[in-house]
Amino acid sequence: MAKKKPAPRKAEPKVPVKLTDKDKKTLTSLEKLASGVVEAAMKSRAPHIEIPSRALSNVRYNTSKKFIEIGSGTNRRELFNLSQAKAYMQSLLVAGGAKELIDEGKTTSLRGMYYKLKHTIAGTSENTFDGQGESDTIIEDMEVALGAMREELHLYAKNAGAMVGPVVLVDSGDEIDCNRMGSGGYSIPSIVEPEIVQFKKVQADFVLHVEKDTVWRRFNEDKFWQQYNCILTHGGGQPPRGVRRLLHRLHHEHDLPIYCLLDNDPWGYYIYSVIKQGSINLAYESRRMAIPGARFMGLRSKDYERCNLTPSVQIKLSEQDIKRAHQIAAYPWFAKKKDWQKEIEGMLKNGFKLEVEALISKGISYVTEQYVPDRLEDEDFLD
Amino acid sequence: MAKKKPAPRKAEPKVPVKLTDKDKKTLTSLEKLASGVVEAAMKSRAPHIEIPSRALSNVRYNTSKKFIEIGSGTNRRELFNLSQAKAYMQSLLVAGGAKELIDEGKTTSLRGMYYKLKHTIAGTSENTFDGQGESDTIIEDMEVALGAMREELHLYAKNAGAMVGPVVLVDSGDEIDCNRMGSGGYSIPSIVEPEIVQFKKVQADFVLHVEKDTVWRRFNEDKFWQQYNCILTHGGGQPPRGVRRLLHRLHHEHDLPIYCLLDNDPWGYYIYSVIKQGSINLAYESRRMAIPGARFMGLRSKDYERCNLTPSVQIKLSEQDIKRAHQIAAYPWFAKKKDWQKEIEGMLKNGFKLEVEALISKGISYVTEQYVPDRLEDEDFLD
Repeated sequence: MAKKKPAPRKAEPKVPVKLTDKDKKTLTSLEKLASGVVEAAMKSRAPHIEIPSRALSNVRYNTSKKFIEIGSGTNRRELFNLSQAKAYMQSLLVAGGAKELIDEGKTTSLRGMYYKLKHTIAGTSENTFDGQGESDTIIEDMEVALGAMREELHLYAKNAGAMVGPVVLVDSGDEIDCNRMGSGGYSIPSIVEPEIVQFKKVQADFVLHVEKDTVWRRFNEDKFWQQYNCILTHGGGQPPRGVRRLLHRLHHEHDLPIYCLLDNDPWGYYIYSVIKQGSINLAYESRRMAIPGARFMGLRSKDYERCNLTPSVQIKLSEQDIKRAHQIAAYPWFAKKKDWQKEIEGMLKNGFKLEVEALISKGISYVTEQYVPDRLEDEDFLD
Repeated sequence: MAKKKPAPRKAEPKVPVKLTDKDKKTLTSLEKLASGVVEAAMKSRAPHIEIPSRALSNVRYNTSKKFIEIGSGTNRRELFNLSQAKAYMQSLLVAGGAKELIDEGKTTSLRGMYYKLKHTIAGTSENTFDGQGESDTIIEDMEVALGAMREELHLYAKNAGAMVGPVVLVDSGDEIDCNRMGSGGYSIPSIVEPEIVQFKKVQADFVLHVEKDTVWRRFNEDKFWQQYNCILTHGGGQPPRGVRRLLHRLHHEHDLPIYCLLDNDPWGYYIYSVIKQGSINLAYESRRMAIPGARFMGLRSKDYERCNLTPSVQIKLSEQDIKRAHQIAAYPWFAKKKDWQKEIEGMLKNGFKLEVEALISKGISYVTEQYVPDRLEDEDFLD
């Protein structure tokens, strides 16, 4: 083995951090939050912060915008309140940590932030955070309180999901041609805000979003996206924020229809629901993530008969599936849609779910050569 | 929303499938297996196949090659044996499925193969496979029996892991410059055999392999790989076969040292063990995957003192961790290495584990600006 002693090629000079406009805006929110606390203390008043409530009771479906949004309810966190003091301290720690990241022009992971802020409080055996779950929750609180997405606090989750197709983009200064990304595709980062990812050339006619990596790969291998001039994405199951935001930008900035190919089960329905209307837990992000214009291409409960599938591909619905299906059918955005009610009833009547992979029983490329082309041809989508 | 009716741009003419040399070799093995069965039947003898045993008892550490390898023990699977008939039938189904994939020049996922082969046996209520676990196991059996890796049977797992650095490669005909892959890097496919991935230009001095995506991202954001002229990879925890094979190729074809930055816990030790000596379950793949020359850079149990870390980053060892640490210390390839014995004893004495992320408590970029540069400088690696 050639064993060279590795050495840095060149000493990189420290460049002063360049703040984006968004960074400046976030810093202003952070400073406003801190000033409120300082001012209260100076006036000998009990410091507190207001955090918008993320409880179900403070979330509603906006029928004109057609997505889930957060209401105006807030919870107060006071320093001099035994049950609130810890969360108050944690909130300020997260705010301080975010400010430091922005000042340094760096980002970190949710786990990194947890480690950054975790320490034992001097003179006690009490830790600032006892687990990452605690800091993750406070980070979500601070996003809402500051009106800044996680990305704007310079925090990210791990990459998940991939994209391929007629798009050229610039990611962190590097030009990426998604026409030429080999078998793996462009790995979608968790931060795809315009400061990080700029679209340079988008020549696709639509986006086909599939649930899983394995299905995505079949479409990529069969060069479906070349033949149909489309962008092909997957989100590795429930798509993370980066993937949702990317789809949102492609839809809104480039007028591309978004067609979703998901499993015929409550989980697939729910993925569609989140892509289209937003999620309950992250309702404050709907305006930047929800895509009310998205369409559900399949699988459909009628596909078992329509595609003449064999009984072997049936996966029996569990008690949990049935319960979940009823819950989803009752969501305000599905409740009034006859097509969706029929769809969910169909699955319950079948008594089984169908994964997209089930189509392979008809042939390896049935899904790319028959199923999706037929759906595009007959335009039989659910809204 | 611009709603165009999507239509294929051009009808792709069906091109005849071009078999690679490896495909031809695999087909020969498959046909030999099938011929054996047919010949036995023609001679009115009971058909059977021989499957090399993957049990622990048939695995040994080869001290000269310095990796784990499979022995010569085999298990016979007979058609006319009630306890073996199903596995016999499943083995032939997998072989037939693989042949079909190779003939069609297509690949599928493990799940896809399961769906492809799953059906109810005519005249019975018996399924060929009752779950993907069954087909996955048989696929591993067939890899050993045919002397062909999963990839050579045209089966793949999902993409996992990423790479960035001074490498230009060709993946499925597309040229990928890993110097310019934005924030996400090159998504490492599960198949990186030379037929799929060719290295065009490798200008790095070494490879830094880190355990997790989040750590990888810190190194990428800090442009560590530019400064130290290295390739930066991660495997999302225990690296999947594609990542291990890629590291193997970089090490053996391009003489690059492989340095591993993993957590200081039994899981991190085990990841290193698999990268270096191969895994027990996939011992038959060691010759193509194991990298006896790999080096363990850290974290080390002495880092708590060496780096002057705060108590808050300690994660207490569980009963399970302690048990696992003793098992790992007893592995033949660790048992005779004093350094490793000292390392594992050190962790047990500490009573806690240390994740790489713990270094963030010293500063966001401590790991890229101090920890790893120091280790490269002092060359204090474990073998």
